[in-house]
Amino acid sequence: MKHYAKKDFPVSEVRRFIEPGPVVLVSSFWKNETNIMTMGWHMIMETEPSLIGCYIWTVDYSYDMIRKSKECVINIPTVDIATQVVSIGNSSGSEINKFETFQLTPVPSVTVKAPLIKECFANFECKLVDSSLIKKYSLFVFEVTKAHVAISPKFPQTIHYRGNGLFMLSGPTVSKYRKLFKPQNL
Amino acid sequence: MKHYAKKDFPVSEVRRFIEPGPVVLVSSFWKNETNIMTMGWHMIMETEPSLIGCYIWTVDYSYDMIRKSKECVINIPTVDIATQVVSIGNSSGSEINKFETFQLTPVPSVTVKAPLIKECFANFECKLVDSSLIKKYSLFVFEVTKAHVAISPKFPQTIHYRGNGLFMLSGPTVSKYRKLFKPQNL
Repeated sequence: MKHYAKKDFPVSEVRRFIEPGPVVLVSSFWKNETNIMTMGWHMIMETEPSLIGCYIWTVDYSYDMIRKSKECVINIPTVDIATQVVSIGNSSGSEINKFETFQLTPVPSVTVKAPLIKECFANFECKLVDSSLIKKYSLFVFEVTKAHVAISPKFPQTIHYRGNGLFMLSGPTVSKYRKLFKPQNL
Repeated sequence: MKHYAKKDFPVSEVRRFIEPGPVVLVSSFWKNETNIMTMGWHMIMETEPSLIGCYIWTVDYSYDMIRKSKECVINIPTVDIATQVVSIGNSSGSEINKFETFQLTPVPSVTVKAPLIKECFANFECKLVDSSLIKKYSLFVFEVTKAHVAISPKFPQTIHYRGNGLFMLSGPTVSKYRKLFKPQNL
């Protein structure tokens, strides 16, 4: 598996990797236990502060861990670990240790206790800043407190869920529409 | 431009087109005026009822139109109209009629007054069901009340924003991971 060399990345710019809509892995830590869940429903809600809204279902083992620890790491996997991503989403942390079972490497974070996943292209350390929408919408509003992004490649091949077991893989990145933007909208 | 033949689509399954994360066009109608905006921040919040959370900025001309009419249509554009999508996002409905300027065709909706955009692959008619998060987060929670999706192709080539004027185009759809799913998770 790939072990990306990473650099610090501006938290206000994590939208560059979240906004295209990839499936992400959410790692958590609570009471000496780690876990990983696969998540498809998320959105950028603000850039400064850097807010990400995430749907975490009540039946997910991670739900209580994240609600109680008020932290997580949002990791961006690439297609080379798609098998693990799907397997993580189809197993429960109540039964297995997902880092061990799926041979992923936990790496200490800087601002939270939840571990980074070394094999992911990018890792966004997050703190829960608004829990008021959890009960009604299972919506966790996180602020990204630290971001780590691989030095290369510049544009990772991410996986995007279409439902029904199908994934769309990211295709080419194009710059030809850039000239149509007003400078303030870039 | 393409004029897709469309069929009715189950509103509980619009996630198949929203969850991969494409840029969408939001059409609106208020006081005899139509408008279109380009939107990149959105997420599925529930499937039954079919809820989509959308970030609509206060400075967008569509903001008041949608807030007051409590309706919109979320349209999924494909790469063939990417130039229009970017141009729509870089102009204001306060100055131009976007349907006319960008030669897009408004088609009457069934459950809302906002028009469908004929040249888009899919059209999701939406009603605002929760306005309580608009003030704090510019977050509009819509329920999809009617969905229209092109009969073909099965998987449209959508455009996904990376920020800084760059777009990721959707790549191939793969089914090889489907066997890893538990039936109840499909």
